[in-house]
Amino acid sequence: MPHRPPTIIDVAARAGVSKSLVSMVMRDDPGVSAARRAAVLAAAEELGYRPNRAAAILAGTRTRTVGIVVDDFRNPWFVPMLDGVRAALAPHGLRLTLADTQANAHLGTSPLDDLLALRVDGVLLAAEGVADSVVPPDTPVVVAGERVTVPAGLDVVASDEAAGGRLATDHLLALGHRHIVHVTGSGGPAAARRAAAVERMVASGSAPLVYGGGPTAESTGYEGTRRALAEHPETTAVFAANDVMAMGAIAAVRDAGLRVPEDVSVVGNDETPLASSPLLRLTTVDPHNDEVGRLAAERLVALLGVPASGTSPMRTLVAPSLVVRSTTAPPRG
Amino acid sequence: MPHRPPTIIDVAARAGVSKSLVSMVMRDDPGVSAARRAAVLAAAEELGYRPNRAAAILAGTRTRTVGIVVDDFRNPWFVPMLDGVRAALAPHGLRLTLADTQANAHLGTSPLDDLLALRVDGVLLAAEGVADSVVPPDTPVVVAGERVTVPAGLDVVASDEAAGGRLATDHLLALGHRHIVHVTGSGGPAAARRAAAVERMVASGSAPLVYGGGPTAESTGYEGTRRALAEHPETTAVFAANDVMAMGAIAAVRDAGLRVPEDVSVVGNDETPLASSPLLRLTTVDPHNDEVGRLAAERLVALLGVPASGTSPMRTLVAPSLVVRSTTAPPRG
Repeated sequence: MPHRPPTIIDVAARAGVSKSLVSMVMRDDPGVSAARRAAVLAAAEELGYRPNRAAAILAGTRTRTVGIVVDDFRNPWFVPMLDGVRAALAPHGLRLTLADTQANAHLGTSPLDDLLALRVDGVLLAAEGVADSVVPPDTPVVVAGERVTVPAGLDVVASDEAAGGRLATDHLLALGHRHIVHVTGSGGPAAARRAAAVERMVASGSAPLVYGGGPTAESTGYEGTRRALAEHPETTAVFAANDVMAMGAIAAVRDAGLRVPEDVSVVGNDETPLASSPLLRLTTVDPHNDEVGRLAAERLVALLGVPASGTSPMRTLVAPSLVVRSTTAPPRG
Repeated sequence: MPHRPPTIIDVAARAGVSKSLVSMVMRDDPGVSAARRAAVLAAAEELGYRPNRAAAILAGTRTRTVGIVVDDFRNPWFVPMLDGVRAALAPHGLRLTLADTQANAHLGTSPLDDLLALRVDGVLLAAEGVADSVVPPDTPVVVAGERVTVPAGLDVVASDEAAGGRLATDHLLALGHRHIVHVTGSGGPAAARRAAAVERMVASGSAPLVYGGGPTAESTGYEGTRRALAEHPETTAVFAANDVMAMGAIAAVRDAGLRVPEDVSVVGNDETPLASSPLLRLTTVDPHNDEVGRLAAERLVALLGVPASGTSPMRTLVAPSLVVRSTTAPPRG
């Protein structure tokens, strides 16, 4: 008997099944019964059949992995979202791998392309800056979170950021604040919050003051608040577009010799781990990003292996809520 | 003629090239002309030459991607490390993808296995808890950072955490502190810092007080400091094992009605973006994790496509430095 490595044909003969069934087992196709799967794996083991990864890929390009693109590892807004994504992927045995928009900045490539090069089964886009990406017809992509621009035809699951902006502003108005500053940056969620906050400030009769512009979220919060307090010393409240900006805002209030919340109230947005930390105890909007992640991943799973339908993309909004902690109070006097 | 698997020498003879040129083709070295590459691949195919990695190359399944396992997205210590990794991968056109130790907790799989399933070319391990993983002989793995246990035979690049622990403790001793508390958690870097801090405290004649034990870094910092201040009100300084713990420590000092640094000095470790934030302005140890990432990735690149050598694993230590900001001062009185 010639010494040669066993092939898929040998395994099929030993297990008494077709070659294509062996191939299905080797690529972990869920459409194989447990009994036949066990028979094939037993035959493979007896023969010493060692499919290398190349064989797996030749047999089928599925990796049973979902890729997710997040925007910035310095802002932990995405941590709750990942919890929701995991919860949705678990029943399907799907793996998760991550790329941030900076991960391959050294190559000048798009994080979407990078994940597609890994032959992921589907992609969740939870970042700006991928609107120009070409979405391949055979790999489902779902957008998680509000974005300025979205590649055409994609489903979007996002928190209702406009509602979040209204919750934060209405909380400050209800406490009696009439001199509110909104500190914000770029990006889709921020734009939606800003529009809603400005609308509410105008409706209440207060002048809509919007500051921003630093290179990072925290410097935007710090510099925006510092300038706002210098130019408008009547300011009694700051709504920061995210929790990291709120950290910067609190630092600017303290550096101006004022106290939070006695002199200036501060509200954040995102309900990151920072917000509940004992150093901040930040009043913030909870966008329920865990729910955004869960729904986006469930939508993606539903699209896996289904040909593009050409139907109108779905848009799902999750209702946010307000979490009141220690950084807001009525204005003095 | 006995039937034996063809070797790299057979391929070189058939293609009329040197053995090292075949080796270059098999590791996808960009310095091979297209014509010679085609000749080598044709010879390999005719002979049925199929080593694992060569098979992957022949099948076109190399992903030219390096995977990195990080431990916890809530602690941004890894952000500077990623900058260093990117800098090292850039000249080689290698992509980067991430997994955290929780990414696939829903599947009960190891993040190392998950990355290998994506057919990455190599893996950087920057997390605990993967010591039991089976490291395949054909995929290089390098450990980035000090770890309690490391899979056998792997190269390690880490900051000299013991030196960092000495820097922090010596800074407090030099300011005149004699009642220093160390707040710490589990994990390899923490263990090295703790041993060094305790050694320095003992050498200086102060009682080595070590607190810890919360479920997260921040709660460990908060609860550890809270208990330390209650049980040892003479405490004038806290060395926290990382910047996130230091955030918790500062909150506990303030909640005890004390001020940082007037009443209690606080030192962190990691030089995360948190440390330089205007809310913290934290005195901390910079482990130079960007340099750790750069050296670990360079080592990994050097191992790509090279058979496991069986030589002793390398251990490279990067010297840390101290960054003095606003949270440390001499003790009062």
